[in-house]
Amino acid sequence: MRILITGAAGMIGRKLTQRLLRDGKLAGKPISALILQDIVPPAVPHSGTFEVTASTGDLAKVETTDALVATRPDVVFHLAGVVSGEAEANFDLGYRVNLDGTRALFEAIRRAGIQPRVVFTSSIAVFGAPFPDIIPDDFHLTPLTSYGVQKMMSEALLADYTRKGFFDGIGIRLPTICVRPGKPNKAASGFFSGIIREPLAGMEAALPVPRSVVHTHASPRSAIGFLIHAAGLDGATVGPRRNLTMPGVGVSVGEQIEALRRIAGEDAVKLIREEPDDTIWAIVRNWPTRFAATRARELGFEAESSFDEIIRAHMEDELEGSRQS
Amino acid sequence: MRILITGAAGMIGRKLTQRLLRDGKLAGKPISALILQDIVPPAVPHSGTFEVTASTGDLAKVETTDALVATRPDVVFHLAGVVSGEAEANFDLGYRVNLDGTRALFEAIRRAGIQPRVVFTSSIAVFGAPFPDIIPDDFHLTPLTSYGVQKMMSEALLADYTRKGFFDGIGIRLPTICVRPGKPNKAASGFFSGIIREPLAGMEAALPVPRSVVHTHASPRSAIGFLIHAAGLDGATVGPRRNLTMPGVGVSVGEQIEALRRIAGEDAVKLIREEPDDTIWAIVRNWPTRFAATRARELGFEAESSFDEIIRAHMEDELEGSRQS
Repeated sequence: MRILITGAAGMIGRKLTQRLLRDGKLAGKPISALILQDIVPPAVPHSGTFEVTASTGDLAKVETTDALVATRPDVVFHLAGVVSGEAEANFDLGYRVNLDGTRALFEAIRRAGIQPRVVFTSSIAVFGAPFPDIIPDDFHLTPLTSYGVQKMMSEALLADYTRKGFFDGIGIRLPTICVRPGKPNKAASGFFSGIIREPLAGMEAALPVPRSVVHTHASPRSAIGFLIHAAGLDGATVGPRRNLTMPGVGVSVGEQIEALRRIAGEDAVKLIREEPDDTIWAIVRNWPTRFAATRARELGFEAESSFDEIIRAHMEDELEGSRQS
Repeated sequence: MRILITGAAGMIGRKLTQRLLRDGKLAGKPISALILQDIVPPAVPHSGTFEVTASTGDLAKVETTDALVATRPDVVFHLAGVVSGEAEANFDLGYRVNLDGTRALFEAIRRAGIQPRVVFTSSIAVFGAPFPDIIPDDFHLTPLTSYGVQKMMSEALLADYTRKGFFDGIGIRLPTICVRPGKPNKAASGFFSGIIREPLAGMEAALPVPRSVVHTHASPRSAIGFLIHAAGLDGATVGPRRNLTMPGVGVSVGEQIEALRRIAGEDAVKLIREEPDDTIWAIVRNWPTRFAATRARELGFEAESSFDEIIRAHMEDELEGSRQS
């Protein structure tokens, strides 16, 4: 089993790499090679049992994608992309990386005549407000950001390339990943992680939106689980609708804070400062709340069942992290 | 009012041109220039009151789109594209013309900093089976052909370019256009027109599918009406969801034939030969049946209210056509 990961230097890419190194196999088959691609050089960890190589380059360039596909991967995890805020601020960059990069990769696979499983990380940003309370799998696609449009267009390509037999694709629409490890970032969604991560580390965290905001989360551990599960799915069982909304935990910010209180006590909760931010609120108020994710659950994708579990996953994987790998 | 029509040499393009020449105005304003583009040289009709020019070239080439946009149109009718069957048979050509050509045109408009109304002809092929009996406006987009994917991707771009203020776009999803004038073609949908057009001309026509097949039709006259109406719509009234399913007449093939009988008598109906064709049936059985088209109707788009009217429109516009223009 030869595996290619694009965007391997990102948070999900690094965690997926660690998981594959630990498992040594994917979809029941031993891993023989792992190729890590990113626009910046990804770290190349050591594996005792298979080759790990790195490739640095721009996916939208044909020489990059051709070289990657020449490694003849059996499974491609296509994670590379610029994030929502960046795609909105830089229109050209977003389309170039998120759309042209994806299409160039798909085209290179088609030209090479290999037919790998392609697992693509899409996003709930393909949906746009107004929303029902629980968003069904067949909710229509009306993205309200350039990022969402780029993900939607990439999903459509993935479905068409799969239908034509050029590869066997699965698109997974990730909910917000929480608790994100590392430092606070400027993403509008950053506070969802910040209000848990910082207090657990004894630091203050700002809450820019009302506690009534409901949103759906999955842990980094679940996101890696989705990717691994997607790699082993039987395409015939999935059928022609190849883009799946992943499950997650739909909770209000208030419920997130109650979970923190149960796990880390009142002292942790006191570190959360209410700092209303109109800019963030204007963005977040149009975000989706809860998803049915019926098809994904039926196909065996599993997320946490409570926000308590999400916090515990963070504590196990990040705060006691060294003993995990 | 300066007007650009891409794909002007096609059936819809030629009829739109004739209509604009006749009206002399669009959205209440006098027409000062009409620019006709196509990959083959479009006919350049004479207008006594404004300039009509032709441009021949490949829309996916930057020199073509830049030259077109340099004419500084106030309204762009973007009709150019390869048809469904061709896009399915020639994967590269379909994406090149239907996606890259559209994107190149949109990009040229963005670069030029003009902000025209862009009316784009999309298609009900953005929808994919299985369908409910009546397809609502917010039915999800899961096209099952490359053509449908290309139209869906173009719609998404149109909405995003509109949201970003680069132009003011309206996408109109056309139902099957019936009765198409001219000779029979190889399109899988050709028989819907053929079983009316040929008998009216005293010729035999093959019916390759069961009479129970239900499908939605609008006349060429209605299609031109949609385009003209879209050009004059207030974008603020339309809101962020810029792609609209057009109304039409949803009827079974049996009802089409009954309408023909009412208008042209039993002798005409006798010219229809049942010739089951498994290939056509395999395609047509997955086609959508009826559409609600609620938003489009509310926004003032009008189609025929019966198939009898569609036949009469064909007879008036084509069989007595010379006195119309």
